[in-house]
Amino acid sequence: MGCMRTEHAMDEAEHSHAATPYSPIALSMGDVCGIGPEIIAQAFAQQPELLRGCCVIGDAEILRRAAQQLGLALQVLACTDPQAALAADAGQVLVMKPAFQADKSAWAAIKSEELLALPIGQISATAGAFAAACVRTGAALALRGKVVALVTAPLHKEALAAAGEPYPGHTELLQAEAAAFAGRSVAQTPVRMMLANPDLRVVLHSVHMPLRLAIEHISTESLLATFHIADRALTRILGRRAVLAVAGLNPHAGEGGLFGREEIDHIAPAVAQAQSLGLKISGPYAPDTVFMRARRQADGSRPFDAVICMYHDQGLIPVKYLGVEDGVNTTLGLPFVRTSPDHGTAFDIAGRGLASPASLCEAVRQAKQSTGLLA
Amino acid sequence: MGCMRTEHAMDEAEHSHAATPYSPIALSMGDVCGIGPEIIAQAFAQQPELLRGCCVIGDAEILRRAAQQLGLALQVLACTDPQAALAADAGQVLVMKPAFQADKSAWAAIKSEELLALPIGQISATAGAFAAACVRTGAALALRGKVVALVTAPLHKEALAAAGEPYPGHTELLQAEAAAFAGRSVAQTPVRMMLANPDLRVVLHSVHMPLRLAIEHISTESLLATFHIADRALTRILGRRAVLAVAGLNPHAGEGGLFGREEIDHIAPAVAQAQSLGLKISGPYAPDTVFMRARRQADGSRPFDAVICMYHDQGLIPVKYLGVEDGVNTTLGLPFVRTSPDHGTAFDIAGRGLASPASLCEAVRQAKQSTGLLA
Repeated sequence: MGCMRTEHAMDEAEHSHAATPYSPIALSMGDVCGIGPEIIAQAFAQQPELLRGCCVIGDAEILRRAAQQLGLALQVLACTDPQAALAADAGQVLVMKPAFQADKSAWAAIKSEELLALPIGQISATAGAFAAACVRTGAALALRGKVVALVTAPLHKEALAAAGEPYPGHTELLQAEAAAFAGRSVAQTPVRMMLANPDLRVVLHSVHMPLRLAIEHISTESLLATFHIADRALTRILGRRAVLAVAGLNPHAGEGGLFGREEIDHIAPAVAQAQSLGLKISGPYAPDTVFMRARRQADGSRPFDAVICMYHDQGLIPVKYLGVEDGVNTTLGLPFVRTSPDHGTAFDIAGRGLASPASLCEAVRQAKQSTGLLA
Repeated sequence: MGCMRTEHAMDEAEHSHAATPYSPIALSMGDVCGIGPEIIAQAFAQQPELLRGCCVIGDAEILRRAAQQLGLALQVLACTDPQAALAADAGQVLVMKPAFQADKSAWAAIKSEELLALPIGQISATAGAFAAACVRTGAALALRGKVVALVTAPLHKEALAAAGEPYPGHTELLQAEAAAFAGRSVAQTPVRMMLANPDLRVVLHSVHMPLRLAIEHISTESLLATFHIADRALTRILGRRAVLAVAGLNPHAGEGGLFGREEIDHIAPAVAQAQSLGLKISGPYAPDTVFMRARRQADGSRPFDAVICMYHDQGLIPVKYLGVEDGVNTTLGLPFVRTSPDHGTAFDIAGRGLASPASLCEAVRQAKQSTGLLA
């Protein structure tokens, strides 16, 4: 089966750079017109010990302005190697310009003055191009083992599009970078988005596409790829075989075919195949009750380690329902650890000192835990 | 506009039978192979004051068996007029056979012995036919002003289908009954499902259909009908103009057209038209955060009275996430009040005394509140 051979290759790549407690983490700045710079500054000011070893990929002047506007006594220092972050003191933030891939000159030409002149809270092609450059640089560092993980501050998808980026978000961009680095096609580099908070983990079969297309995206083969990625990544994170639930697509999971046939034609056969291969997986379950059943119960037990979701909002609605403060986005299937806060650029409050760094801090914490830097 | 004239007619019908504190409520038994009979028995035993005035439409022998199996000291009495329930004492349950529409003989022929012989927890055409008959009888009583509201215990959609019923659930069946009674078409009798718990109310634009069809069902005209039904019903329940949020269909509400065009082509124009007609309505909002924003906040405030949802699971996932114990389903747009518990027949636990009557009791409470029987 094609997807399994691919995953085996990914598995080897994933284990080729073991975490060491002295490896830095790259933290991409995100859209400079959003809340990225200010939550990064707040995170370094509020939790210096947690942020130790994190090197910001972005613009030092932008971060200085954010710290100044927030009245934070941070010392922002430019660097050219993320390793420098390991020697930083509390109160110091190391910032590296996105310049790893010198051949991509479109963004390398963006100067601090240009970025500082952009209106906060608005879509900008310049900010989109710079944000993408930061993510690409972080990915390049991670793929080359220069950092042990990549944590990404939010970017704005319309700004990315305005900059001519072909990817709707981090996940797709990172997938393309990982594929190019490995000399494989994107199809041979399957990744999936996981959202997690202390109560619930969801793995999304598809993400940033119209709901119509998400339905077309459901097939036994593509589902099996999702199941394998989720099983392998979560089993590694948990240290034991992951227990997975699969949500249906249609109301009541199709109610025996009355409300749609995707469960009968694709989802149930994929679950059965995965079971026969040894995965601890079950479903499809009615979408409107599986999350209630899967979330951490009052006694602390978790009937399922994660719910596999058929489309973006099926998983994100429940995981965000009680708030995004402690939500973390993890990309499963990449050859490095990548986490991000579970919120967007929040243009409506950007630059006003209202944004909370809690989710970003949780993303750093989960990145460190996944790489063995934290227990 | 066609839908508005229709709603005006519905409005008159709704006000033609004002609630009096002496009106009985019909409580349809649901699928006798599910948890309906036992939660009805538990409700009467645990909350006799709340259930006062409720007449069960169903089978007395089935309810006697349920009470006996649960060890409840209930006196189950047969009646032929729901008015009899008003004179019942605590501990007495009045049960009326579904026999209002004598011309529909298929179900009238179902005897107690047949029902008692059905295996609990299994799909049965007989149980489906009987459940539909109970609902039809309850609707007929409500439409004729013999009861002031209808509370429905769960039925099983596959059992309904096995019985040859053309309706996938209560909502569609009640809509058809109301339309027939008024001499109108179903299209002229638009109804919508609302799910509510103490934290969140959601109104569903479509319910029991494949997700593919739910997407096709989104048009400016059909959305306007949903907005008007929700506005009018909630404004009446709340005693002030309802404040409504509209969820988008696609990830990030389409992200400006990048992830789908339904928001641009249909949803935003419908919201704008509704605003111009005076509705307090806004959106479309990103589906993955609108419920988090709309639910009751820590300080008790509610930014929105309800969220209008584009399809079944978009609304039911968040409203059920924290549990179905206190969830209530209300049909908006009918010429009578109709509520039901927010759970199904639970075949897996039926007949074992494990099912909770909490949601059914909450449905009775909301029906009484909506009709002025309770403050």
